[in-house]
Amino acid sequence: MIKTDILIIGAGPTGLFTVFEAGLLKLKCHLIDALPQPGGQCSEIYPKKPIYDIPGFPEILAGQLTDNLLEQCKQFQPGFTLGERAETIDKQEDGSFIVTTNKGTKHHAPIVAIAGGLGSFEPRKPPIPNIGDFEDKGVEYIIRDPEVYRDKKVVIAGGGDSALDWSIFLTDVASSVTLVHRRNEFRGALDSVDKVQELKDAGKINLITPAEVKGIEGDDKVTGVSIVQNGEDAFILETDHFIPLFGLSPKLGPIANWGLEIEKNAIKVDNTLDYQTNIPGIFAIGDVNTYPGKLKLILCGFHEATLMCQSAYKIIHPDKKYVMKYTTVGGVEGFDGTKKEAPKAVVKKIE
Amino acid sequence: MIKTDILIIGAGPTGLFTVFEAGLLKLKCHLIDALPQPGGQCSEIYPKKPIYDIPGFPEILAGQLTDNLLEQCKQFQPGFTLGERAETIDKQEDGSFIVTTNKGTKHHAPIVAIAGGLGSFEPRKPPIPNIGDFEDKGVEYIIRDPEVYRDKKVVIAGGGDSALDWSIFLTDVASSVTLVHRRNEFRGALDSVDKVQELKDAGKINLITPAEVKGIEGDDKVTGVSIVQNGEDAFILETDHFIPLFGLSPKLGPIANWGLEIEKNAIKVDNTLDYQTNIPGIFAIGDVNTYPGKLKLILCGFHEATLMCQSAYKIIHPDKKYVMKYTTVGGVEGFDGTKKEAPKAVVKKIE
Repeated sequence: MIKTDILIIGAGPTGLFTVFEAGLLKLKCHLIDALPQPGGQCSEIYPKKPIYDIPGFPEILAGQLTDNLLEQCKQFQPGFTLGERAETIDKQEDGSFIVTTNKGTKHHAPIVAIAGGLGSFEPRKPPIPNIGDFEDKGVEYIIRDPEVYRDKKVVIAGGGDSALDWSIFLTDVASSVTLVHRRNEFRGALDSVDKVQELKDAGKINLITPAEVKGIEGDDKVTGVSIVQNGEDAFILETDHFIPLFGLSPKLGPIANWGLEIEKNAIKVDNTLDYQTNIPGIFAIGDVNTYPGKLKLILCGFHEATLMCQSAYKIIHPDKKYVMKYTTVGGVEGFDGTKKEAPKAVVKKIE
Repeated sequence: MIKTDILIIGAGPTGLFTVFEAGLLKLKCHLIDALPQPGGQCSEIYPKKPIYDIPGFPEILAGQLTDNLLEQCKQFQPGFTLGERAETIDKQEDGSFIVTTNKGTKHHAPIVAIAGGLGSFEPRKPPIPNIGDFEDKGVEYIIRDPEVYRDKKVVIAGGGDSALDWSIFLTDVASSVTLVHRRNEFRGALDSVDKVQELKDAGKINLITPAEVKGIEGDDKVTGVSIVQNGEDAFILETDHFIPLFGLSPKLGPIANWGLEIEKNAIKVDNTLDYQTNIPGIFAIGDVNTYPGKLKLILCGFHEATLMCQSAYKIIHPDKKYVMKYTTVGGVEGFDGTKKEAPKAVVKKIE
């Protein structure tokens, strides 16, 4: 059982900044995220895209923002349960919660902060009847660890950035890379499209277009896929892995069944004070929540996280009074023993 | 008469970010600030101090944050009335406002956003009976333009960072620099104290301690100050300027008389929607406002500014519906004809 002060569902920008603000209050955090790495959409969907409306950054790449937020909260040593989806929540007699993931990992905390963004990202799956039988047996919708493909034969399907970028990346890892797409045209960054063309010309990517994977071969695990190209007869291509990269679509998912008040696919919160939900002790912050005038902006999630931590503190420490100190004045003391602080003024004679 | 869409009182971080968010909605802004430069406290009081709780910046100097915010809002060409204090507000028949400064500059706008921080910074003045007669006639409490002191004789009083740093700076500008402090010890950055020691040893700063300026000489303008050192008899030192730098203390000031609901020296706002005050069309954002759970943090001001701009838009354009576009998707179109945007995806054949 993982124990923490604030259990954060969702490791996107709002979740990560919560770790920092909670840390200033000496509260520990643990984050659960269905994606294999922190950063949420910023890391998974558009790491190389610029964001222009983060205050103080005329421009920042989404991946860089994630890196900065990880660096900012590092002193507070957050725990992570990654690649698992928060599935069920059970309120304990003492008012605390146990949250269990789809893989059975259990987390116990007095406060739950749902920072789930648009929901957990579920892959769009191709309509292949037996695909479910091969999931995690050679079929993967998200690449968690590229080393899994070392010296293996890989078939990737898709025509967007994800399919292009992973095809490029895996040419240095896999023994063979095949890219299947139902059109001849790809949609993505010009660089990526040109690089795939170059690797194809060099014989390092086996390109099959216009084509679709229609079936999967194998007993216990994938041994091949059947491909229909140009509407002709299907043929079998031997492969160890089949990776359909057709995008991720966010779903509120199991959280929708936690008894929280839901409106327009978002969790209703009390914006007059602390972004608490209808269940005391459960907060919802960032894009996942809704209230009058709500804007789904990262900068709003930062504010909501900050106010929420104050209420979390009062729930966890009902008898203590917290006096806010500015970081410029008081510095930041990490749980790892590090301290950041402004250079102190000296009092010194000039003679 | 200066005309704009949103008149912002206070050019600190919250005021500057308002320009950016308003710009995304195609609303123009003009800022009034009592200080001679934008940035508020961040520029005037602690430009070289690090802030640790701006989201996405593990550490940023307050002066750098100001520079970044100026850069971020530059595309939207804000106007500035600097070194003047917003003094009176007059509501017009059409619901718009005219705000007049202490120097008589008039501003006309349908929306007023008070982002006044802790108030306008008023200098702490030394108790010299006739000092009021010499203000702007050789006595200055804030250095607005160092060029004023070119080849002049200058006496600075004070023992903190401001007195130290300006003494150092003006040695390259003024014909002579005298620093008067009532103790032998100075309180400031070690660097600054050591630098003043060095300049004193080199004969570039005339140091008089422990001493106080007790009187000012001159008819129309300052010609000298009378100084008491070590409790001995006063002596007269010739000077063109006397600059007491005893710190600035924030005062809500004339805004307190604008008919706004005030609580604990802050302006009460409606945090359930848009941070509007009790006077429709006047908003208060950042450290100047108060509501249940309020935290006086820069990051909260950013959020409040952003929500406020949405309501401002609706008041200015009651018939239009604004559909928010993410900057990552839609880019940022400046009023200066510039456009920032993410590199576009291409659709391209690979063959």
